[in-house]
Amino acid sequence: MITYEIKSGWIPGDEENELISEAIGKVIEERESAKAGYFNLPDDSKMIVTEVNAYAASSEPIAKSDTIVVIGVGGTSLGTHAIGGMLRHKYPNAKRMIFFENSDPIGLSEKFSMVQKEKTIFLVVSKSGTTIETMAMFKAAIDYFELDLKNDDRERVIAITDDGSPLCRFADHFGLKTYTIPKNVKGRFSTLSAAGIVPLTLAGYDTNSLLHGASKMIRRFFEGNEEHIALKAAFMAMHARSYPMNLLFGYGDVFVSFNRWYKQLWAESLGKIDRCGNRTGLTPMGQIGTVDQHSSLQLIMHGPADKTITFMKVEDFENDMEIPNVPLEMLPASNIVSGFTFGDLLNMECDAVCEMIFKEDIPADTITFDRLSEENAGEIIVYFQLLTSLVGNMLHIDTYAQPIDEPMERQITKKLEQGKEIK
Amino acid sequence: MITYEIKSGWIPGDEENELISEAIGKVIEERESAKAGYFNLPDDSKMIVTEVNAYAASSEPIAKSDTIVVIGVGGTSLGTHAIGGMLRHKYPNAKRMIFFENSDPIGLSEKFSMVQKEKTIFLVVSKSGTTIETMAMFKAAIDYFELDLKNDDRERVIAITDDGSPLCRFADHFGLKTYTIPKNVKGRFSTLSAAGIVPLTLAGYDTNSLLHGASKMIRRFFEGNEEHIALKAAFMAMHARSYPMNLLFGYGDVFVSFNRWYKQLWAESLGKIDRCGNRTGLTPMGQIGTVDQHSSLQLIMHGPADKTITFMKVEDFENDMEIPNVPLEMLPASNIVSGFTFGDLLNMECDAVCEMIFKEDIPADTITFDRLSEENAGEIIVYFQLLTSLVGNMLHIDTYAQPIDEPMERQITKKLEQGKEIK
Repeated sequence: MITYEIKSGWIPGDEENELISEAIGKVIEERESAKAGYFNLPDDSKMIVTEVNAYAASSEPIAKSDTIVVIGVGGTSLGTHAIGGMLRHKYPNAKRMIFFENSDPIGLSEKFSMVQKEKTIFLVVSKSGTTIETMAMFKAAIDYFELDLKNDDRERVIAITDDGSPLCRFADHFGLKTYTIPKNVKGRFSTLSAAGIVPLTLAGYDTNSLLHGASKMIRRFFEGNEEHIALKAAFMAMHARSYPMNLLFGYGDVFVSFNRWYKQLWAESLGKIDRCGNRTGLTPMGQIGTVDQHSSLQLIMHGPADKTITFMKVEDFENDMEIPNVPLEMLPASNIVSGFTFGDLLNMECDAVCEMIFKEDIPADTITFDRLSEENAGEIIVYFQLLTSLVGNMLHIDTYAQPIDEPMERQITKKLEQGKEIK
Repeated sequence: MITYEIKSGWIPGDEENELISEAIGKVIEERESAKAGYFNLPDDSKMIVTEVNAYAASSEPIAKSDTIVVIGVGGTSLGTHAIGGMLRHKYPNAKRMIFFENSDPIGLSEKFSMVQKEKTIFLVVSKSGTTIETMAMFKAAIDYFELDLKNDDRERVIAITDDGSPLCRFADHFGLKTYTIPKNVKGRFSTLSAAGIVPLTLAGYDTNSLLHGASKMIRRFFEGNEEHIALKAAFMAMHARSYPMNLLFGYGDVFVSFNRWYKQLWAESLGKIDRCGNRTGLTPMGQIGTVDQHSSLQLIMHGPADKTITFMKVEDFENDMEIPNVPLEMLPASNIVSGFTFGDLLNMECDAVCEMIFKEDIPADTITFDRLSEENAGEIIVYFQLLTSLVGNMLHIDTYAQPIDEPMERQITKKLEQGKEIK
């Protein structure tokens, strides 16, 4: 269970209520017209889980593997990483997931050296099937691990891509196992598609529960039972000028990767030119408590009042760790923490920071996980996606487009061609 | 060598030039009056390096260790982490550095399980000597690793703290080795003090070169030869309302920890109430290329024009990795990357993104490392510290204060006391 609380004390008037119902109506329309496809993933992807489990049961390379390498950049890998970050500690026996996710020679060569081909399944994930960095890393992996796609290693490589994409055709050519991402699901909305579900299932995570949690949230939202999401969206959209930033403040290292996914979802979806031709959007920030709380709180309380704050915390860390009652000579003040767990301390610090912020009337909300469960992980993914859709509709932008992609790919290609000439 | 380029095309007028010389004058004053002590660290800390090396040569536990555990939160550990991130790959034989830096039961228990006491040196780092989380983690480490401070493990634990602090007295009581941080150096400015220099030296990094690089930058700045820093500071300070955010866009995984340090430095130093009683400051953001470039660029180009962008890149990754010439059937477009290295690709993508941003007149600057060297790492630390001091003076705030600390500690203590009563 996740509890959502909005602390802004803001009460929408007639105009705002109209905006809210209009935006919800548009989300319903996006679902019905299939403009966006992520709403159906929690139900549709259950088939993928069954299929992957059946395939894994029959595949010797998978049975022998202890590592899943995900080759993919941005949307196609950040979501998987985010879920792994929240749940990994619950799966001491799960296969390791290693992400080849950046065209960085230092990071890559370190990761390459951690992988033993005989115990690894490689997933190449690219929606378009042509992503430059993904293809470069795939080439390097084929070369470095001497992947023989025609024979021995055919079962070791799986493609995840759009139906009919060049990567899809490549996989067909070699007879590689392929899973497809629905065409109307963009990278940053694809976590619960094959892009995330295949690696997580193969690694051994309970993806059925993950999807179940997401599915219940989707159902509740469309039944009109999660009104707080639209309320929060409305506050953010209507105050986009006075509060152009949202700071997601996750208490616990488990949220490090989630922050990255959230920042990508938010930035790419909401940074858009609106229907009147104005540049609009909200800027996402991610911080981790308690590490960042001193500096963040200083900026939030004494810096410009330009941020809304979203706290994310976990009530019960389950395998929590006692702070032992070790009295430290000359440090009697430190005894105050004795008898608590590290989870208690983390949460009490979060509560202390929240109270200071609420007292200053800084618009804030809290998202409290009862625990780190698969269902909660699924729910929080769709919660942020629904929030994004709603804010997008309220800002009158096309949430699912990514118009910068094409000019950017062109510019990169130009650079590469110029580079070729110089060489 | 690091090259700094400002792309804003902004030319300061008389008023701005006056602000610039005034701010530089104030920094000179801060150094002379010892209001801030970080200016002297590059020279003063050379003694620490000598001392640590001599001590390490005579200590059996250090000789036998392969791991340095740094117990500390925020300023006292983020800088060490940042330098480790930029240089670690150059030191395949260096001791591992593991950071106990968050009161998080999941992260901590994972880190605890990675450590073998017999091969580890524990550094407890706390400026005040009373930081709640640091003391809690220290207690847990004493308990978990059965550290016998009176006998066997005395040489295994080193304290780094303010002279005379409770932790300092604790260390004296047990006869632990202690290094002190100058009183006029705040956590976020302490990277080149004992806080960073002791762990990095013990781990085996060439900290003399690190300090040398920093020292040269400090000297050049005070000789008036790094005028671009004040120019960038002036643009940022004078446009703080129109561009309230600075996005540090590091190309390469080596900058992940640097971003975290930068965000802390910037937020805690610049989020302040100015001399007229107004809340002021600039908000730092950190992103990593190429991972975040699609989403960031979308937000930068089509979202509100409210950010300045700082690109940070490395010209030559030295041990760069070839993208092998592996033709992929059905994927002829992917051949464009053949013949390049991953470093080339990373940098050409960075250049492509830069060009798009410059063309839109978005205020931006680039910081280009010729390579990842100790000298460059030292230089970039003081570069950002000097920039922070200058912006602080231009915003008429007290850059080195952290007024939120005390009310926050009070609030946390209150929470802990309430928690005790409930238990």
